[in-house]
Amino acid sequence: VEPPVITLLTDYGLADEYVGVCHGVILRICPAARLIDISHAVPHHDVQRGAVLLMRSLLFMPVGVHLAVVDPGVGSERRAVALQTADGRILVGPDNGLLWPVARLCGGIELAYDVSESPARLEHVSMTFHGRDIFAPVAAQIACGEPLDSLGVGIDPAQLTTLDMPEPRLEDGELVVRVVGVDEFGNIEAAADARELIRIGAAVGDSVAIECNGGPSTRVRVARTFADVRAGEALLHEDSAGWIALAVNRGSAARRFGIELGDILRIKPVVSE
Amino acid sequence: VEPPVITLLTDYGLADEYVGVCHGVILRICPAARLIDISHAVPHHDVQRGAVLLMRSLLFMPVGVHLAVVDPGVGSERRAVALQTADGRILVGPDNGLLWPVARLCGGIELAYDVSESPARLEHVSMTFHGRDIFAPVAAQIACGEPLDSLGVGIDPAQLTTLDMPEPRLEDGELVVRVVGVDEFGNIEAAADARELIRIGAAVGDSVAIECNGGPSTRVRVARTFADVRAGEALLHEDSAGWIALAVNRGSAARRFGIELGDILRIKPVVSE
Amino acid sequence: VEPPVITLLTDYGLADEYVGVCHGVILRICPAARLIDISHAVPHHDVQRGAVLLMRSLLFMPVGVHLAVVDPGVGSERRAVALQTADGRILVGPDNGLLWPVARLCGGIELAYDVSESPARLEHVSMTFHGRDIFAPVAAQIACGEPLDSLGVGIDPAQLTTLDMPEPRLEDGELVVRVVGVDEFGNIEAAADARELIRIGAAVGDSVAIECNGGPSTRVRVARTFADVRAGEALLHEDSAGWIALAVNRGSAARRFGIELGDILRIKPVVSE
Repeated sequence: VEPPVITLLTDYGLADEYVGVCHGVILRICPAARLIDISHAVPHHDVQRGAVLLMRSLLFMPVGVHLAVVDPGVGSERRAVALQTADGRILVGPDNGLLWPVARLCGGIELAYDVSESPARLEHVSMTFHGRDIFAPVAAQIACGEPLDSLGVGIDPAQLTTLDMPEPRLEDGELVVRVVGVDEFGNIEAAADARELIRIGAAVGDSVAIECNGGPSTRVRVARTFADVRAGEALLHEDSAGWIALAVNRGSAARRFGIELGDILRIKPVVSE
Repeated sequence: VEPPVITLLTDYGLADEYVGVCHGVILRICPAARLIDISHAVPHHDVQRGAVLLMRSLLFMPVGVHLAVVDPGVGSERRAVALQTADGRILVGPDNGLLWPVARLCGGIELAYDVSESPARLEHVSMTFHGRDIFAPVAAQIACGEPLDSLGVGIDPAQLTTLDMPEPRLEDGELVVRVVGVDEFGNIEAAADARELIRIGAAVGDSVAIECNGGPSTRVRVARTFADVRAGEALLHEDSAGWIALAVNRGSAARRFGIELGDILRIKPVVSE
Repeated sequence: VEPPVITLLTDYGLADEYVGVCHGVILRICPAARLIDISHAVPHHDVQRGAVLLMRSLLFMPVGVHLAVVDPGVGSERRAVALQTADGRILVGPDNGLLWPVARLCGGIELAYDVSESPARLEHVSMTFHGRDIFAPVAAQIACGEPLDSLGVGIDPAQLTTLDMPEPRLEDGELVVRVVGVDEFGNIEAAADARELIRIGAAVGDSVAIECNGGPSTRVRVARTFADVRAGEALLHEDSAGWIALAVNRGSAARRFGIELGDILRIKPVVSE
């Protein structure tokens, strides 16, 4: 029989004791659990970026318990929840939208529980570290087989806080997309399926003009991969999540173009002369 | 039967091979061990900060072997030790005070061994990487059941190097505390139990004036949690370790007030007019 | 029976989802695998630094599958390979020289397979994330017992891309070495066995003069360990890998001397007066 899996995503960073303490709390309750750290470097309090990282990773994870904590409202009235998705995963975290987009990718939410007052909580619940005191012990109990309805109070999934991802839109013949990720390489991730490029007639081999936040327009090649352009040259491509991405071969698109999380890109076709 | 647990805390950082090598050395000796990384981002050579992180985390860990290496004296005459605490944990690390404060939290030291010349050491012991060559193999042997007295030479716990944490003190009606932590969110951790605030008559809902390193005084609310104040507003609160902490809701107190590790805070009550 | 071990080294960093996704892909295929992260902070696209970290770490790892991805040519014609070494390890990664130097330390390559089109690949192979789509699933299948010849096509090891480490050389009575590592402490790692110092007659206790990139010469003591010199003083020593290293006791040699990865150091003996 395979060991239960718990994945973790937080904005705690790795410098302090927070992530290690969550691991410790989990392994005290469920010593057999296998832990996978997705990322702990979500920008502090950035619920949308946390949601994006879950969307880009969760379907590659073993089916298990998926703990996510980006929780600017810790200690307030926001609920702690455990959600069962159609594909059999359990998502555990704050009810602030963080879990919402990935739950849809998992086929939607079948059952939802408010675990704010769960009997699984640690004896002393602090006002500021619910990852340790609520989320980790609830996740560990689920991983070790405790039924959800003994860990929380059933609630209507329709009552959960939602989070809408920015949608790409067509405007004056331009595809307008929002930057929802800048990775460590400086690659720019836009919230748009790469197939959206068809709407402006752009295919691999074409060039497009990209304008960021109303700045000057840059001409960029649509390519399949980094190595399709020269070192130092920019490219627009379908990234590993199937999204539209702007990159520089062996360089940083973020630095080259001064693009940051949340920026707006306008992409339009370049007519060959 | 549950797998043995080894926790690790070092100042090695995660960029180089050092932490991975310690994991490798441990798993070669004790393949069943479960490893929990508490933190590897202790500021280089900062024994006190390492001790603080152990104090804030260890009681949440499964009882096991607890390896800690912040070791500016590596290669010198300082001893390598393994300590058995009253609550059944084994602490392994350099005898430079790093393990001292947390050992007291664990009920005190019952047995102490000098493992500097342990038969568990790797065949070649380098002059600069005792984490790999002494501490990791000793911890792994203990985790796999080797008795302590076969791994080192018994010593009197009274001979160990001690480390006193800075104590809060009352001075001219002010509570004077030292900053022993600045976490990644910019929260300021003071070396003082939150109950010390009673000594200056400050309770949740009150305001206090805080002065840092003789700079100007700032008025701050005593609150239960971040969400009790507006975004961007400062608060003094009991943090998740039960200590006095200074924070800014959805912001960084370190940046706001220019506070660094080692600074002195003077806290006094504000008389309402 | 011991669980199979997979070690990982990449230039992905820990901020994004990439490393976690590789862990997830591996554990879906081989749930029993033990994962050891050597480092994920190789400077982006720096194949030589990746090779150096493998050389400094791999022999301390349990014998297993060793995944390494520093892959500026991802999506191009470069091959994906799995290599069996004389000491029974399997190295998996791109055929760009990354695995070459460590394979020699492991006794040389006995069998080599091109796994670019491996049946182990994920169903959809992206153009930019072969760590997830090719290398991780191939490594996981090997770890779980799948024979190499069912996972790829045998190739002649002599066809593999090689990578030569910079060799120390003697020039005008000076030992000339290249900096191949600057660790988080600011210690400078030179690509030279510490025994090379004999060639210029320098032994522990002597002083040497070091010149970096044609800058001014600095006099430094040859010592056994940091604690042999005063705090803040520089030393040249044999580091934990047996290499020549330049360090500052409780300080950073990189900052003190302004030395960076790739710099050239010229070391010459200082004649006592």
